[in-house]
Amino acid sequence: MGPEEFRAAGHELIDWIADYRARIPELPVQAQTRPGEVAGKLPRNAPEEAEPFSRLLADLDSIVVPGVTQVQHPRYFGWFPANSTLSSALGDLASAGIGALGITWQSAPALTEVEEVVVEWLRELTGLPGSWKGVIQDTASTACLVALLVARERATDYSEVRGGLQAETAPLTVYTTEHAHSSVRKAVALAGFGRDNLRLVAVDPVTYAMRPDALAKALEEDVKAGRRPAAVVVSVGTTGTTAVDPLAEIVPLAQRYGMWVHIDAAMAGSALLLPEMRWLVDGVEGADSLNWNPHKWLGTLGDCSLLYVADPAELIRVMSTNPSYLRSAVDGEVTQYKDWGIPLGRRFRALKLWFLIREQGVTGLQSRLRRDLDNARWLAETIAAAPEWRVLAPVPLQTVCVRHEPPGVVGDTLDRHTRTWCDRVNRSGAAYLTPAVLDGRWMVRVSIGAEQTERMHVEALWNTMRTEAER
Amino acid sequence: MGPEEFRAAGHELIDWIADYRARIPELPVQAQTRPGEVAGKLPRNAPEEAEPFSRLLADLDSIVVPGVTQVQHPRYFGWFPANSTLSSALGDLASAGIGALGITWQSAPALTEVEEVVVEWLRELTGLPGSWKGVIQDTASTACLVALLVARERATDYSEVRGGLQAETAPLTVYTTEHAHSSVRKAVALAGFGRDNLRLVAVDPVTYAMRPDALAKALEEDVKAGRRPAAVVVSVGTTGTTAVDPLAEIVPLAQRYGMWVHIDAAMAGSALLLPEMRWLVDGVEGADSLNWNPHKWLGTLGDCSLLYVADPAELIRVMSTNPSYLRSAVDGEVTQYKDWGIPLGRRFRALKLWFLIREQGVTGLQSRLRRDLDNARWLAETIAAAPEWRVLAPVPLQTVCVRHEPPGVVGDTLDRHTRTWCDRVNRSGAAYLTPAVLDGRWMVRVSIGAEQTERMHVEALWNTMRTEAER
Repeated sequence: MGPEEFRAAGHELIDWIADYRARIPELPVQAQTRPGEVAGKLPRNAPEEAEPFSRLLADLDSIVVPGVTQVQHPRYFGWFPANSTLSSALGDLASAGIGALGITWQSAPALTEVEEVVVEWLRELTGLPGSWKGVIQDTASTACLVALLVARERATDYSEVRGGLQAETAPLTVYTTEHAHSSVRKAVALAGFGRDNLRLVAVDPVTYAMRPDALAKALEEDVKAGRRPAAVVVSVGTTGTTAVDPLAEIVPLAQRYGMWVHIDAAMAGSALLLPEMRWLVDGVEGADSLNWNPHKWLGTLGDCSLLYVADPAELIRVMSTNPSYLRSAVDGEVTQYKDWGIPLGRRFRALKLWFLIREQGVTGLQSRLRRDLDNARWLAETIAAAPEWRVLAPVPLQTVCVRHEPPGVVGDTLDRHTRTWCDRVNRSGAAYLTPAVLDGRWMVRVSIGAEQTERMHVEALWNTMRTEAER
Repeated sequence: MGPEEFRAAGHELIDWIADYRARIPELPVQAQTRPGEVAGKLPRNAPEEAEPFSRLLADLDSIVVPGVTQVQHPRYFGWFPANSTLSSALGDLASAGIGALGITWQSAPALTEVEEVVVEWLRELTGLPGSWKGVIQDTASTACLVALLVARERATDYSEVRGGLQAETAPLTVYTTEHAHSSVRKAVALAGFGRDNLRLVAVDPVTYAMRPDALAKALEEDVKAGRRPAAVVVSVGTTGTTAVDPLAEIVPLAQRYGMWVHIDAAMAGSALLLPEMRWLVDGVEGADSLNWNPHKWLGTLGDCSLLYVADPAELIRVMSTNPSYLRSAVDGEVTQYKDWGIPLGRRFRALKLWFLIREQGVTGLQSRLRRDLDNARWLAETIAAAPEWRVLAPVPLQTVCVRHEPPGVVGDTLDRHTRTWCDRVNRSGAAYLTPAVLDGRWMVRVSIGAEQTERMHVEALWNTMRTEAER
């Protein structure tokens, strides 16, 4: 496809996207697709000959759009917000059009330096320490694994250059809570710590936040038993209930044992753009790394996950490679992001963040975040005041955890009731909610923050919930 | 930005990209940027208020384009081809416009099933065994790490569910050659094997391919010393010289010791679309995993790296997570790609591959690959016939490794000469080449395969090389 064919097809696709986005409110939120249905519409083999672009566009309508849950829908309240703002999509299109090769500073200086600048903008906007440096990763899962790999190496005096983790004797331990994201457990396993060396520290029964006294006790016992505490993963905004572990009380304990403190603020990080929400990370100066996802609530097209570290030298020491074909005369003067994570090559992902921030301005971003926090407070208060309905956890952010508890409906019957009404809401296509387990029982998460979600959509959701649960 | 603003801005950006792509041949290939130059043009703080789109577009021209090496240029012969074809860019734009959330099958059935189908198309086109299954990863670095993590777990009877790698006693060893990509060493370190347990098996002095007899000897010695061979990484097309390790001879040895065989065909994988090149992976039926990058030679916009595994159950066993909020009624019937790699969430990356294959057709893709192989053969023969020039390694693919060796210029003087003329070519902006070290001496890699590179561009390069080296 040459530039002129691209121009023609590109204009068609832009129009298609504009039309699609405009009609999202009329689409069912949840994909009504059966397993195998999409695959069944596709040919079994790749086409031998070229196809016209019109056929691709037609397949987007007939196969792709009906096959995705519409997370850009104003009545999407599932998992967490996954906003793909249109200005961010244009930044990503610019990245695709330029097609830069992001392997070293030399291969694309602008790719590196725009990333440095934009990541620094966001450091300042989120109030992280001035000495911290950031890098874009794909997801929080990867960022957590990277942090734990560096923690592991620091704790073993860089065993990777010798016999590796397998040559270490005193077992390294990692601490988090059972409410931490599943990727924390996965990172612990992948980094080779082993499940036996992961401590799920007890949480407060009301806030679901890590109990510092329980952490202190676990650390004491482990050290007494000859184990070496290596890292603690602090959740700022858990996936289940957006619980906030008390960082300021955890940091001194971690420092006493020389542990790495990684903060998983994947969802909540966006809120740090609001000065009134900075309390979420009180104590951050004593931590080692923090990760959050502009590809969630902030609205940057995925994948775009920010990892900030207090000391990039520790990261680089573990992640760097230096083959001859990647060396250049300026190596000492520039940032080589290939040494800041697992992949060697990277996309020009900073463009989508750059476009979003400039198109909305800081005040635009902040007012959207405040709108969503207000909506969540309104919903939580409304539900708490409704008979037979219960809000199950504090609402520090934009997610409300609820249950409809009719008199006499308990235990497994209550579970069935919860899953049934949630499923009815989702199948109706009118809204989308995520059921989850809390304290061994099913509940429903209402996660507010899709870009198009206004108060009227939250009100409509609440009506739908009552209709489906109370019928 | 609403749909109508997007429509207007999107049309402008499409035109900008079409114009930019059309004028690439007039741009210098190498970015002429000084360290800090791009960052110096950007404001230190994020804008408080929204900016008009025109300003973003202007910055692409004045800041971004001059700040990237033009790897889409017809006279780009650096590193490896990094083609970002325009049809693939449109597939990616469709992905951005739809903004699907790729965390489970349920969140976007089409995202999963289009990936399954397209990855299966490519399995069939590359002649991999019919029972193998594939998944899109970001890069070969990640794919190699994933393969070695699974290899580690299989070799330890899944130590991750117990005390982890740190609880194992007999050291696990990994085998590759010094010509393997730097990411192999990095993956060995990150997976916790330790550098002491990485064996760089001797290579043939002419082909730079792994010597099976040296591998056999290393395995025997390690086992005798109480070590446990866990994995061998076979390079099919090394980065330096595109050397091809003899897979068919390595596989029986690996099987004797129960080792995981991972094939790194990051660059060469595209060639497997040509039946006459399938010899590259003779013996693949006995391997465990193979990775190649459609985001290199094939022309898919990065990041798009394919990982195929003989038995996905082994991958899933190591990578799966199952929190309550991600469960659904169809879990047993569908593919959950979150369990096939490190990240939980994924972009709809299959669209860019789908668009590319359909826009070009298999025959279109094949003829471009054959064109590049022909051009490399022509250049290798021409250089080999030129006095004082030497082709340093076999040319099984599209990369020619060369040196200009004037009489009496040897040792460090030769190194200086090589680096000087290569630097002159690159600084001229007329073409871009990558210097690299082979057998302790600098040489120059000419890597052919940019989408726009025709025979005339290779001829022009050869003239430039002679001019700069022989002057």
